Amino acid sequence: MIKAQTLKGFRDFLPADAIRRQYVIAKICDVFERFGFDPLETPALEYAETLLEKYGDEADKLLYLFSDRGGRKVGMRYDQTVPLARVIAQYGNVLPNPFRRYQIQPVWRAENPQKGRFREFLQCDADIVGSSSYLADSEILVLAAETLTALGFKKFTISVNDRTLLKDLPVQAIRTIDKLGKIGEEGVKTELSARGFDAGMLDALKARHPTETLTRVLETAPELGVPRETLRFTPTLARGLDYYTGMIFEVEITDYTAGSVCGGGRYDRLIGQFTGKDIPATGFAFGFDRLMEAMEEKKLLPTGKTATELLVTVFEPKMLDESLYLTSQLRNAGINTELSPLPDAKLDKQLQYADAKGIPYAVIRGPNEVSAGTIALKNLRMQVQEEMTVEALIKKFARNTDTVTGTHLPSE
Amino acid sequence: MIKAQTLKGFRDFLPADAIRRQYVIAKICDVFERFGFDPLETPALEYAETLLEKYGDEADKLLYLFSDRGGRKVGMRYDQTVPLARVIAQYGNVLPNPFRRYQIQPVWRAENPQKGRFREFLQCDADIVGSSSYLADSEILVLAAETLTALGFKKFTISVNDRTLLKDLPVQAIRTIDKLGKIGEEGVKTELSARGFDAGMLDALKARHPTETLTRVLETAPELGVPRETLRFTPTLARGLDYYTGMIFEVEITDYTAGSVCGGGRYDRLIGQFTGKDIPATGFAFGFDRLMEAMEEKKLLPTGKTATELLVTVFEPKMLDESLYLTSQLRNAGINTELSPLPDAKLDKQLQYADAKGIPYAVIRGPNEVSAGTIALKNLRMQVQEEMTVEALIKKFARNTDTVTGTHLPSE
Repeated sequence: MIKAQTLKGFRDFLPADAIRRQYVIAKICDVFERFGFDPLETPALEYAETLLEKYGDEADKLLYLFSDRGGRKVGMRYDQTVPLARVIAQYGNVLPNPFRRYQIQPVWRAENPQKGRFREFLQCDADIVGSSSYLADSEILVLAAETLTALGFKKFTISVNDRTLLKDLPVQAIRTIDKLGKIGEEGVKTELSARGFDAGMLDALKARHPTETLTRVLETAPELGVPRETLRFTPTLARGLDYYTGMIFEVEITDYTAGSVCGGGRYDRLIGQFTGKDIPATGFAFGFDRLMEAMEEKKLLPTGKTATELLVTVFEPKMLDESLYLTSQLRNAGINTELSPLPDAKLDKQLQYADAKGIPYAVIRGPNEVSAGTIALKNLRMQVQEEMTVEALIKKFARNTDTVTGTHLPSE
Repeated sequence: MIKAQTLKGFRDFLPADAIRRQYVIAKICDVFERFGFDPLETPALEYAETLLEKYGDEADKLLYLFSDRGGRKVGMRYDQTVPLARVIAQYGNVLPNPFRRYQIQPVWRAENPQKGRFREFLQCDADIVGSSSYLADSEILVLAAETLTALGFKKFTISVNDRTLLKDLPVQAIRTIDKLGKIGEEGVKTELSARGFDAGMLDALKARHPTETLTRVLETAPELGVPRETLRFTPTLARGLDYYTGMIFEVEITDYTAGSVCGGGRYDRLIGQFTGKDIPATGFAFGFDRLMEAMEEKKLLPTGKTATELLVTVFEPKMLDESLYLTSQLRNAGINTELSPLPDAKLDKQLQYADAKGIPYAVIRGPNEVSAGTIALKNLRMQVQEEMTVEALIKKFARNTDTVTGTHLPSE
């Protein structure tokens, strides 16, 4: 017998979780498209040379690299920005310019698994390629804010900076300053000194003012809908990745302390590594797991274990045809309906099954109901039952259909 | 400079294709949930021993296997049935029994790429685990038929057989008979003889009648909604995979000749390899690429290149604020709206951008429109323009919002 186990850092999503993930993804897609971004998909595997030396030395060690059966050096998708850069180089002539795309796919990193950190996780990216305008940066900020609002978050902070404000600082100093949120001001100053830098650099940085471009970004974003009070010019914000060249930002949800749920900025030189000439770009990625965790904490996620709304029971085996017909009617009306998988079992057993799966309602049609031309609808949570016609049943459940999510939300 | 290239057998999906894929996936999810199936997600990587020796020797050679950074032998998802079997073994005690799940994820096979065959492709699976009832088999047939109907297919054939009818035939003979569709009757007979079997075996097989169980499956499926004329008892149907134990079936779209779009059946012994005791199961997979190809042929796919419905132009740079406000209004009304990415360019250039992206309409708000309290809506395909209020504009586009697909369909 083979041991059934999942690899460390990898996860199965059973229905309750998979439903919630779909719900959030559908909402994100909806907002991204509302802002004029179109979907893009790229392969799970890329040539290793496409991925290597893009993210920094540390990241290169986290790539899943191997030789395929044809001896090609390949690697698994590490993020969605480098694949986007490759796509621009490969299809630039047939894509609109500027190009706005979103991409929601898993990425793989051989990290040491720990709480909230996985080796396979979903990223939700949106980018505008081909525009160096401050308006593109504003749109990116607006999209990030609007997505969080659509997901139900009431309070969040967008810390914004311009990477050019840091350009005279050594990379090692930037890395230290980037830890401000984790180790605090004193910690940063100590580390700066230890590394042989002037600790006063931090205070000098804090006194800086936004660049002219950043000022325009920050002025325009509220006109496009970002609540003004969420925007914070944060001259100490550095962001880890090496490829940023202009505006950078991070979004934190108020009272969610596990870290920022979204980060991004302008990277005007990455794509040039594939095209030979620089193409400006700006964008962001939502970390899907943190987003889900924050939504969970704020009770913004659906709670049902199943998308199934009704179980049609079989009163007794010889009445099976009644149940088959009823099931078919309800499905044709667009209601998520399951036919009892235990048609020969006692009604109690069938209801137990519905309850175990989390189906909120069961429909019973016995000889009494058949002669009255009705059905009995049993609310399994409240343990109450009411009689109604099939038409009334269909009408009652039609309203529960939340087609926005692409899935049907379980009725309360 | 790094060469921008995709691995052989792997594909990028640019917006026009990605939109169509999302459209089809959303429809499939919708039907699957309507039939009481819940989503499941499993990791891209599994322990190699989970995957090996499940699909047959030939398939094992197609697995993407490698050693991860921790020295574990791992492999990429080859199908979704074996991961399902592992999930049942691992979480069986917390899952409803029977368990109905669907799963729509990419799988990877190191096949020799050829027309219509890729190394990364999407599978759409639906299975019922834990029921040995003929009703579960009927439900599986109904779901397959209903999915095709929901996708817009009018005519298709479901060939059905019972694997037990073939149980006295040698495996090599079954493999030969399985080629009937490709090499014809004479071809099969020749090959049977060449392999030392009695060629009359084929005629004997053709004369067989459905088993008692299969008869009940075929009687029940129409009661649950399968058009009776689509069902064909086909005693020569064999199906390649070794793990089938009962009903097997394949679905072909009439006038689509590239092969079956869906296949499946009952496999009562696969899960036992993980659990140590047999658990009955029945289900199917849609081959997503063939489905898309057949839909393309039958003109069942949306044709837009973008999900964006409107481009809000900027009449002249100093009127930018008007356009920002209008963009924000339209987005708040749920309309997929892009703010012109060329706000400093002449109107013509902005309209060219909209056209290149495939946005069907542009909105213009110049001084005349501002004083009249209107906007001009330009239909870029028809090259006609009409004036209306913002309220009228919102009303006109609200009807285009197809929220069922999770994406917004381009207007007509």
